[in-house]
Amino acid sequence: MYYIIDILGLISFAISGALVAFNKRMDVFGVLIIAFVTSVGGGTLTDLLIGNTPVGWMKNIIYVYIILGSAVFAIIFRSKINYLRTSLFLFDTIGIGLYTLLGIEKGLNANLHPLICIALGTMTASFGGVIRDILCNEIPIIFRKEVYATACILGGITFFALRKFNVPESIILIVSGAVVIVVRLLAVKFKIALPNIYSKDT
Amino acid sequence: MYYIIDILGLISFAISGALVAFNKRMDVFGVLIIAFVTSVGGGTLTDLLIGNTPVGWMKNIIYVYIILGSAVFAIIFRSKINYLRTSLFLFDTIGIGLYTLLGIEKGLNANLHPLICIALGTMTASFGGVIRDILCNEIPIIFRKEVYATACILGGITFFALRKFNVPESIILIVSGAVVIVVRLLAVKFKIALPNIYSKDT
Amino acid sequence: MYYIIDILGLISFAISGALVAFNKRMDVFGVLIIAFVTSVGGGTLTDLLIGNTPVGWMKNIIYVYIILGSAVFAIIFRSKINYLRTSLFLFDTIGIGLYTLLGIEKGLNANLHPLICIALGTMTASFGGVIRDILCNEIPIIFRKEVYATACILGGITFFALRKFNVPESIILIVSGAVVIVVRLLAVKFKIALPNIYSKDT
Repeated sequence: MYYIIDILGLISFAISGALVAFNKRMDVFGVLIIAFVTSVGGGTLTDLLIGNTPVGWMKNIIYVYIILGSAVFAIIFRSKINYLRTSLFLFDTIGIGLYTLLGIEKGLNANLHPLICIALGTMTASFGGVIRDILCNEIPIIFRKEVYATACILGGITFFALRKFNVPESIILIVSGAVVIVVRLLAVKFKIALPNIYSKDT
Repeated sequence: MYYIIDILGLISFAISGALVAFNKRMDVFGVLIIAFVTSVGGGTLTDLLIGNTPVGWMKNIIYVYIILGSAVFAIIFRSKINYLRTSLFLFDTIGIGLYTLLGIEKGLNANLHPLICIALGTMTASFGGVIRDILCNEIPIIFRKEVYATACILGGITFFALRKFNVPESIILIVSGAVVIVVRLLAVKFKIALPNIYSKDT
Repeated sequence: MYYIIDILGLISFAISGALVAFNKRMDVFGVLIIAFVTSVGGGTLTDLLIGNTPVGWMKNIIYVYIILGSAVFAIIFRSKINYLRTSLFLFDTIGIGLYTLLGIEKGLNANLHPLICIALGTMTASFGGVIRDILCNEIPIIFRKEVYATACILGGITFFALRKFNVPESIILIVSGAVVIVVRLLAVKFKIALPNIYSKDT
């Protein structure tokens, strides 16, 4: 189950990367690279910072196949992929939820402070998108519009709050993953954004 | 003393990051991230290149509190912070001086060549600003206008020159840190820049 | 022989980095940094991902001298360097061929899957240019125009194909390095590009 969602996350991040690369009119190779980077970027950064090398995807060749397959799929069906946007957004959000948990667990395994673990979870979930935007020469969208990192952080706080009360591991994972997903879905549905700090000084 | 200046460096880098993020009209989360990255970016790169993982700030949760606190302070007082620019510039310059020394020491601990140590010192002092500018989608200012890295390099050369003559450690640190600070202050005061190499071929 | 081509690769990457920095009208320091990053960027990323730290150039001070010397040379003779563009392009292409092989060997030494090794070879050959373009605030050219990575990938495939048939190591190196070089030269000469995937949906 865990593994299946992980794969779904990889797929949806790869496809979302490919879509951005299309908009920049990159060639086939560029699309593959951007898809790849969007999928594995967050986990790679986390692995590097912890010192967990060679980094994850190098040890799981199946990841590489899945990402390349998803990108090729996106290239072939690029004209129809707009119909899939809603399900993509859902996959993407599920992926974010799971990647947050993966990052937190990596931090716990390295005996790091809860705050650092939450930061790692947020990085794992969001850095792929950040590096995608840097490579495409845009201000990373995470810094401007989306309730993205906030969802990860709330999920991470939930994780450690439940942990204090000795809630069983499996329930912690399900609940805190769900918090990430629900916060993001609600935020997007109701167009909730962080408070605007520029109102007075515009 | 050493520790106090380190903290001052962290604070001023965090605030300088927040100021740049304000100019880009980022949301609260973006401001926090940019402040954080500006503060720890240089040290993190150095730690990664040396293989000193988990990287420094992960092992010192107090750093995280200080950075987030400074960024929140900058957000709250953003309309008044312009009055502080002069003292900020001073903190920033002191921070650069100290970060240069920290980077050199990391290199020495890893038994690296003096030139590499100077490069690490310069990176530690300047990479936070570079990554801040990349994330904000600008050509890093270090590559265009400021006598910034040059001050670090001169400080590093002073460090190793004094070391050749068996000057005591504490005096080396004070003198070479002071070189970085004085060079930068004088350069900014008298608008000294590196020789322009484009005069003939414009 | 191997070592000589390595040095030639370093030199030509350093000069190509310096040329791009000139176009952006960076100061002397910026030119040195960009030259340095273009030369060692690919190998550094590969070393980081594998966990091979301190990274390569830190252990070979001679590399640093060569890169800085090349950049200074480029600065002094910048008005005449346009005459050298053809030979530079040749050096650059040879460099790419060799860096591809270096990256593959690093992957093999870390017991990684052939596909990962090919990815590492491609990274080693191309990431220096990518980071150069990011620092200069451009969409990395590799994602848009050049048959660059494709040449590395074909060379990598040749490497592992020959290896399956127990061809001697030295012949594998020469043939697969030659594939990279010839593919790139032919592609540039005959303006071959990857198939355009945007024709229908423009």
